[in-house]
Amino acid sequence: MGQYNKTAAGELPLADITISDSFWDKQIELVQSVVIPYQWEVLNDRVPEAAQSHAIQNFRIAAGLEKGDFYGFFFQDTDLYKWLEAVAYSLTIKNDEKLSQLADEAIALMGSAQCDDGYLNTFVQIREPVKRFTNLEECHELYTAGHMIEAGVAYYQATGKKAILDIVSKFADYIDSRFGYEEGKIHGYDGHQEIELALVRLYKATKNERYVRLAKYFLDARGTEPFYLEEEWEKRSKISYWSNKEISSPRERAAYFQAHKPVREQTEAVGHAVRQVYMLTAMADIAALYQDEEMKAACKTLWNNIVKKQMYITGGIGSTGAGEAFTYDYDLPNDTIYSETCASIGLIFFAQRMLMMENDRCYADVIEKALFNVIMSSMAKDGKHYFYVNPLEVEPKASILSPIKGHVKPVRQKWFGCACCPPNLARLLTSLRGYIYTGSADTLYIHQFIGSEVKTALNNTEVKAQISSNYPWNETITIRILAEEERDFKIAVRIPGWCRKAVLTVDGEEIVLSSCMEKGYAVLSRNWKRENIVTLTLAMPVEEMQASPRVRSDLGKAAIQRGPLVYCVEEIDNGNNLPALSLSKNPAFSIKSEEILDGVVTITANGLREDESGWDDELYAPYQRKTKEVTMKAVPYYSWGNRGEGEMLVWIRKEV
Amino acid sequence: MGQYNKTAAGELPLADITISDSFWDKQIELVQSVVIPYQWEVLNDRVPEAAQSHAIQNFRIAAGLEKGDFYGFFFQDTDLYKWLEAVAYSLTIKNDEKLSQLADEAIALMGSAQCDDGYLNTFVQIREPVKRFTNLEECHELYTAGHMIEAGVAYYQATGKKAILDIVSKFADYIDSRFGYEEGKIHGYDGHQEIELALVRLYKATKNERYVRLAKYFLDARGTEPFYLEEEWEKRSKISYWSNKEISSPRERAAYFQAHKPVREQTEAVGHAVRQVYMLTAMADIAALYQDEEMKAACKTLWNNIVKKQMYITGGIGSTGAGEAFTYDYDLPNDTIYSETCASIGLIFFAQRMLMMENDRCYADVIEKALFNVIMSSMAKDGKHYFYVNPLEVEPKASILSPIKGHVKPVRQKWFGCACCPPNLARLLTSLRGYIYTGSADTLYIHQFIGSEVKTALNNTEVKAQISSNYPWNETITIRILAEEERDFKIAVRIPGWCRKAVLTVDGEEIVLSSCMEKGYAVLSRNWKRENIVTLTLAMPVEEMQASPRVRSDLGKAAIQRGPLVYCVEEIDNGNNLPALSLSKNPAFSIKSEEILDGVVTITANGLREDESGWDDELYAPYQRKTKEVTMKAVPYYSWGNRGEGEMLVWIRKEV
Repeated sequence: MGQYNKTAAGELPLADITISDSFWDKQIELVQSVVIPYQWEVLNDRVPEAAQSHAIQNFRIAAGLEKGDFYGFFFQDTDLYKWLEAVAYSLTIKNDEKLSQLADEAIALMGSAQCDDGYLNTFVQIREPVKRFTNLEECHELYTAGHMIEAGVAYYQATGKKAILDIVSKFADYIDSRFGYEEGKIHGYDGHQEIELALVRLYKATKNERYVRLAKYFLDARGTEPFYLEEEWEKRSKISYWSNKEISSPRERAAYFQAHKPVREQTEAVGHAVRQVYMLTAMADIAALYQDEEMKAACKTLWNNIVKKQMYITGGIGSTGAGEAFTYDYDLPNDTIYSETCASIGLIFFAQRMLMMENDRCYADVIEKALFNVIMSSMAKDGKHYFYVNPLEVEPKASILSPIKGHVKPVRQKWFGCACCPPNLARLLTSLRGYIYTGSADTLYIHQFIGSEVKTALNNTEVKAQISSNYPWNETITIRILAEEERDFKIAVRIPGWCRKAVLTVDGEEIVLSSCMEKGYAVLSRNWKRENIVTLTLAMPVEEMQASPRVRSDLGKAAIQRGPLVYCVEEIDNGNNLPALSLSKNPAFSIKSEEILDGVVTITANGLREDESGWDDELYAPYQRKTKEVTMKAVPYYSWGNRGEGEMLVWIRKEV
Repeated sequence: MGQYNKTAAGELPLADITISDSFWDKQIELVQSVVIPYQWEVLNDRVPEAAQSHAIQNFRIAAGLEKGDFYGFFFQDTDLYKWLEAVAYSLTIKNDEKLSQLADEAIALMGSAQCDDGYLNTFVQIREPVKRFTNLEECHELYTAGHMIEAGVAYYQATGKKAILDIVSKFADYIDSRFGYEEGKIHGYDGHQEIELALVRLYKATKNERYVRLAKYFLDARGTEPFYLEEEWEKRSKISYWSNKEISSPRERAAYFQAHKPVREQTEAVGHAVRQVYMLTAMADIAALYQDEEMKAACKTLWNNIVKKQMYITGGIGSTGAGEAFTYDYDLPNDTIYSETCASIGLIFFAQRMLMMENDRCYADVIEKALFNVIMSSMAKDGKHYFYVNPLEVEPKASILSPIKGHVKPVRQKWFGCACCPPNLARLLTSLRGYIYTGSADTLYIHQFIGSEVKTALNNTEVKAQISSNYPWNETITIRILAEEERDFKIAVRIPGWCRKAVLTVDGEEIVLSSCMEKGYAVLSRNWKRENIVTLTLAMPVEEMQASPRVRSDLGKAAIQRGPLVYCVEEIDNGNNLPALSLSKNPAFSIKSEEILDGVVTITANGLREDESGWDDELYAPYQRKTKEVTMKAVPYYSWGNRGEGEMLVWIRKEV
């Protein structure tokens, strides 16, 4: 097996990074103080207003501690696993004996429920007629196992406790004994990718190559002929477990779970968006670990397809609610959009793995875009209300009256029955500091401007970097570099793709950026003193952005952006029928720091509004434009929907 | 019972009207030479490439002539009835012994299949477990009966043959014995409106008031409490006939079939569009016959809601494919639209009934708009391919790849399994001359400019009117008025709402229109000579139309219109990515008669096209508009999709 590309940088342990940031601390604290405890209560069915979870109960029944039937989604176990993963990261931020004890008890329960051979899936164990691994397309046993493994690795890495690692390794070993190319093994793979990336994480924690080989097998087997999922479907008499009726061949829906062709031959993101990016995350892992150029090329092709043809300006992906899926190039409707929070989380995972292979700011740019827009938008201030769908145009009555917009909600919804996004968000935010830096033997890469401190070794001296700023509101970021001893090493600072004018100084001396730029990073290679101050000033004028003219939905429109933040207009500030607004040729933008929405910079702009008077009696009339001048007010996209129910719009018509 | 409002005009017998029109003759001839014979073959399962119909077979089985099971939709019988109705009208245009004989045989078969008590529905008769009238919401027995009655009335009126009238009257009598306010009768109504308007037609043919009372009952019972369809649903243990599973209360979907409130209290068009307009047609009939002002007010309210808030510029209705339904005011998406051909046919029925009550051009304007755009668009030149859905924006790959646009087809489709639109179109076109004129004792109203001749009596002298023109291409219409004797009477000529400048002459002398306009009609009241020439010149400059700024989908856009024709741009003339086009501030329109598309006037215009170069590597970039000047070519909307598969667009961005 190969190794990570030596020129790229690797992950740094979470334990070596601390975060302290005026923007993100609140979010992370909310996850720790509200989301994790609330989710534990939900898992234990102690939240009257939430849908019944039964997750813990399922484990107790599977363990023989109680009698009863399975309840919930067939992947209900993952609710516990995602909680456990978030707990793991949370414990690395702040120790919490009580939480630690709850987690240990849950792990003990998992151990009790686990079969002697290592298998663990409460749905299959309790519902006896369901045979193991006989309906990989529908039953998601490997997907569920993947979340179990991710949780186990995270908890082990956070606490050093081996109990959970033993449990998940035992299951992984069992899976390895059942799946693979060898005769007698199942030549299949899961209908929902996840096990692949999880096995890579297990490999990194255990160094047991069996796991990474199995991950690679799952990827390489996918989409090949003979088509395993079709054989499986024939074997079960073409019956769907869910409808108990005969269904069509999986071939017809293979693109939905990205098994329509071998993964290396796939060139366009298709199907269920979360499955797609989870798969790509593992593909990037395998490309790096095996130095597999063909796999890497497939990753880059699909990366480019997503970010250059199928991604919303907010970092959202998934253009349709039907199948929560990608559709086709340049199809980016703003109002029938899906843009699931989980899909952008998956996109961040994928981008992060790509960044491990190749220090190119395009990956970190997308991580930043998704974090500050879609991700930040998802959770309400109470930690108990979420956007699962992240639209760019909202008309509240459409959510009720238009059948194709029912999934687009004008206000954050209570924690759902299918608790995918909130725990996924919880694990992302509690591990957020893992996305700020990467390091190699001689270089520390700074990808994100999130207030934090990292400790690492560069050329055999201990180096600390401390980022402080009022990002994304203010232009200046200060990075203090502390070296145990004066030493030659490199600090590589990302100059964001959105920034047209950046000024970088080291100890007050301006650096000529053109002389040190490498793929979007200012690489500062020098003999560093024991204490050095790097300042980075990223000009943040308000900008009007344009989409490719191939995006029909955005033609003739502009989006307002400042720094990494996309802005939107809301009904509360601008009246209703927002599409009747247009940005003036010269909008004369001005910015203002306001206390609203937990403190944001708002933007005002000159605009026009189509005059609706005289239209009560006619729907169509000869063209005769009547407008009035207005002053528009825009707020950061992520903050929308926090002041009651109303319209929202990102892409605004533009006068030319 | 009251009578039709004396100030309004009434229907004229089809037998008194002949049509001879350069635009419509081809369509009507196509129905007679291709559609009707083809449909007969389909009904008899003799068309290998068409979906199995089994319609005639169902009747033979119900009649005991053959053994077998029912096949098809539960309303499969209506395929025969709609065919028979079209045959009836066709025979009034041109006698055809062979066709007449086929129809008589079909009628004899209906008679054989009819139960002794008058009931006739092959689905219910063959599928024994289905009990008559126990699932009105789902099984459409009365809807099916309605089409039978319409066919019967039309055939009787066309041929004078009573056999069919006896059959349908016997069924109507049976329905009357089973439904109504009286104790022991069913207090219900059908899930799909149609019987109501059919019973009014039967009343007009027979003068038996029982039928109109029953029609009124069905309307007045609808949407009242106790909610009959819920009682029915409870009686059948809440089981759906289709899924054989328990379903939710019909209350939850009552708006879909317009039973959410009493019909007189309904103020917004909702639910399934065809149901809505069929119901309104009957409501207008009842309002007129009973001089029922409350009912009339409800009709006008709903008329206004449809045409001022929920109708496409083409005369299409139904904004969503989900339920083929209305959504809400000003929600008129161009690309996820439904705009079913049948719905516009129903809208024409409704408009025609309103016109009977009130000679206001708004009704005739909508009939014309629908005829020249949606209706004319539906059928291909071969008579065997149809648009069921009539979109205003088409991107072929979206029809395949976007789950919310799958119903929007870029080319006309073969006759479907559910043969609703083609036979509905056939009956409309063969009775098209019924929409041109109405008459009262002293006035002949000319509503449509379709080449034709009518014979009627005005103030006791026989009057003929002969319309000739090259409408809609040329501006001048000639109307020859021939009176058996010189006489005082009135000729009322509609001045279309789309026309900004009309010149009317009688025998060469210009009429001052302002002195004789009544609700959009130039009422020429004079002593007419035995021969008179009226000429009407309707200025037809190319116009840019605008939608109300409340229509989000059309903001900043214009539609090209000339006379009654809406125009569109197609990929074959303008390249792909049509939304990248915009109309110049001064488009400098020019028109040209061309041989293409069976002869049309095409329009060229100056425009801009967004430059797509430089966008391969970016999806978003700072706003910087790059355009190139282009000459656009537009063709009549109805002619789109006849030159291969490609994009199409009606609403075009407008430079200001």
